[in-house]
Amino acid sequence: MFPEKLLKGYHSFLGNRFEAERKRYETLAEGLQSPEIMVIGCCDSRVSPEIIFDARPGELFVVRNVANLVPPHETNGAFHGTSAALEFAVEVLNIKHIVVLGHQRCGGIRAYAEKMAPLTSGDFIGKWINMIAPAADMLGERGDMALDDYTSKLELASIGQSLVNLMTFGMVRRRVEAGTLQLHGACFGIGDGKLMVLDDSSKQFRPLAA
Amino acid sequence: MFPEKLLKGYHSFLGNRFEAERKRYETLAEGLQSPEIMVIGCCDSRVSPEIIFDARPGELFVVRNVANLVPPHETNGAFHGTSAALEFAVEVLNIKHIVVLGHQRCGGIRAYAEKMAPLTSGDFIGKWINMIAPAADMLGERGDMALDDYTSKLELASIGQSLVNLMTFGMVRRRVEAGTLQLHGACFGIGDGKLMVLDDSSKQFRPLAA
Amino acid sequence: MFPEKLLKGYHSFLGNRFEAERKRYETLAEGLQSPEIMVIGCCDSRVSPEIIFDARPGELFVVRNVANLVPPHETNGAFHGTSAALEFAVEVLNIKHIVVLGHQRCGGIRAYAEKMAPLTSGDFIGKWINMIAPAADMLGERGDMALDDYTSKLELASIGQSLVNLMTFGMVRRRVEAGTLQLHGACFGIGDGKLMVLDDSSKQFRPLAA
Amino acid sequence: MFPEKLLKGYHSFLGNRFEAERKRYETLAEGLQSPEIMVIGCCDSRVSPEIIFDARPGELFVVRNVANLVPPHETNGAFHGTSAALEFAVEVLNIKHIVVLGHQRCGGIRAYAEKMAPLTSGDFIGKWINMIAPAADMLGERGDMALDDYTSKLELASIGQSLVNLMTFGMVRRRVEAGTLQLHGACFGIGDGKLMVLDDSSKQFRPLAA
Repeated sequence: MFPEKLLKGYHSFLGNRFEAERKRYETLAEGLQSPEIMVIGCCDSRVSPEIIFDARPGELFVVRNVANLVPPHETNGAFHGTSAALEFAVEVLNIKHIVVLGHQRCGGIRAYAEKMAPLTSGDFIGKWINMIAPAADMLGERGDMALDDYTSKLELASIGQSLVNLMTFGMVRRRVEAGTLQLHGACFGIGDGKLMVLDDSSKQFRPLAA
Repeated sequence: MFPEKLLKGYHSFLGNRFEAERKRYETLAEGLQSPEIMVIGCCDSRVSPEIIFDARPGELFVVRNVANLVPPHETNGAFHGTSAALEFAVEVLNIKHIVVLGHQRCGGIRAYAEKMAPLTSGDFIGKWINMIAPAADMLGERGDMALDDYTSKLELASIGQSLVNLMTFGMVRRRVEAGTLQLHGACFGIGDGKLMVLDDSSKQFRPLAA
Repeated sequence: MFPEKLLKGYHSFLGNRFEAERKRYETLAEGLQSPEIMVIGCCDSRVSPEIIFDARPGELFVVRNVANLVPPHETNGAFHGTSAALEFAVEVLNIKHIVVLGHQRCGGIRAYAEKMAPLTSGDFIGKWINMIAPAADMLGERGDMALDDYTSKLELASIGQSLVNLMTFGMVRRRVEAGTLQLHGACFGIGDGKLMVLDDSSKQFRPLAA
Repeated sequence: MFPEKLLKGYHSFLGNRFEAERKRYETLAEGLQSPEIMVIGCCDSRVSPEIIFDARPGELFVVRNVANLVPPHETNGAFHGTSAALEFAVEVLNIKHIVVLGHQRCGGIRAYAEKMAPLTSGDFIGKWINMIAPAADMLGERGDMALDDYTSKLELASIGQSLVNLMTFGMVRRRVEAGTLQLHGACFGIGDGKLMVLDDSSKQFRPLAA
């Protein structure tokens, strides 16, 4: 049975938002999409990019993976989902902005911080969150820092690392240097709604003025 | 500069939805997430799962990749983003439902149907959408079917294939056979808002009653 | 020097079986083969499919690899021997039955069960028998089960997994659903000659009546 | 339903060969196998190594793939079934002889000779039989040679290539040079039962005296 919650939610969507934006949906369905912004976010159930940015259909091209990580350009592996999405966004959709959107209380980052890798008996998460290693190296030893504080720092450092990794893709770097593509880092605070944004000049995360 | 559209959207979110659900956000921020439903959706800017299912924060664990594909269990590759997310959802979050959510007018499926692979000069999309091949084999020859019709069929067949691939993960199969996890396939029609759901007994997609 | 044992065996074959079936061999040599049954068996020296099924030349198309494993459909790797053989059997030979033939006392399965992977200093076996992982996930924890019992269970679970993996190949699934191809699982007991066959309805292995 | 032909064959095996060799099977089941000879043969239904060499259970460790090919040592691919079997045979079983057993009328070699790659709409066979390319390069242009003649030559050349590839595995080369492992090439004529064996000194295939 299809989950009851989804059935109800879908009917609510149909009667409200779809009804209100029907014209827009019809137009969007005519061709392919043409969003200007790509968001690389986390799978976490509390941080939907469309909700946080109150986005309308057609506005955000969204990849979501565990801990919003971007791998570096690396050609020998198989099934590079995030790299494929990036390539599609940049080369096919000519996206203008890429936002790496992290968040506080990230289970993936925390698992790495707690050295819980491999997190389960499986093979996949351990390998995946190993991508956080360069950000952790960048931070240096945790020392006697509290786990919560260290995890928060690692969340930000990992966003920075993903931005560096984005630049390892030639198609990205070329456009960034030509000024036709901009990269951004942001981090959402679930409890207080605060959005920290990476400031280009200071290289620090600063809260957006509310 | 952080995109203007996102700034405005974020402030709208803060003043409206976050304000209205502040209590919920605060509670959600206290621990880790505990959603019961995982959605594997497409990056397409027109098909946000949270919008289509009018979901609240904390309800949906969402992976989004190009063409909402699930690879089969395959242990030798590197950086399996979707498999890692699946493992996290099943083994850590004990998710109860997995919904593979496709949609009409999918650029990734269409690219495969048009034999546009590799789609660009890059390496990633071509490999990624090659995962659609078994669904295309399943459909058989396109013959003189119109491209739109064939693409629509391939969208549904590909959802079916992802459901088959989910069962190659032992952790998934064990829970499905024990009745503690359910798999679902659904396909969203952008223009008319119709949601087709895969019927377990008939193995056919049928529209949800509105 | 060509091994003496093979020279003797070959002369015995020439004087006996080849002599008796000369006509059949001559006819078989005229064109290509047209077997109706594919067997995916183990390299183990004790479980020749032609001997166990007393098969005549031309009857069984036989793949043999370590632990009779079928990988899922996975398009990016190189040199997929078993997948290539499967494709040849299904698409070129139009095989009607595929039998995954396991056996007791399998060294490959046992190596996995003993967590001996990687088994040697080499790279290949460890990766190969990692394909057993989903079957092990399916079984759940070994707990305090004796190694022999656990290995026996894993042999059967792994046959089941290979049958699931066969269905990830669109060309296989299409024919199975159309009723023109049947999949079977069987497990041979070396010491007692017993053949366990997977029962379609109960999903259990049951011994063939002798 | 389990194929009738296999049921009958199995009962014939049980009543005859298993009955006659029961003692041997019981002994073989006590531990792991200890064959001295590995055969790398073709999946073709007409060329069972156990039949051609009238082998008893426990004597031959048998890999069978399309066109009896051995890939060179190559570490980046996934699921190297043949390399894994080779490693198991050499490092675990301490095999003394490896026989690459080809045959005439090989569909895989012929497909390559006819430039039928990719042979089908699938992805696997084409890649697999591409391993024949170095043997074809070795032979040189086909020119106006009849297809049957060229295919026969290519069957032999490909066996030679597999023997060269075997030597690219360090574990093999070390043992060959130490004299503890011997490599052999042989080709079976389906219609006349003739076995051609590669002569070490002349590097030519010569028929075994009958």
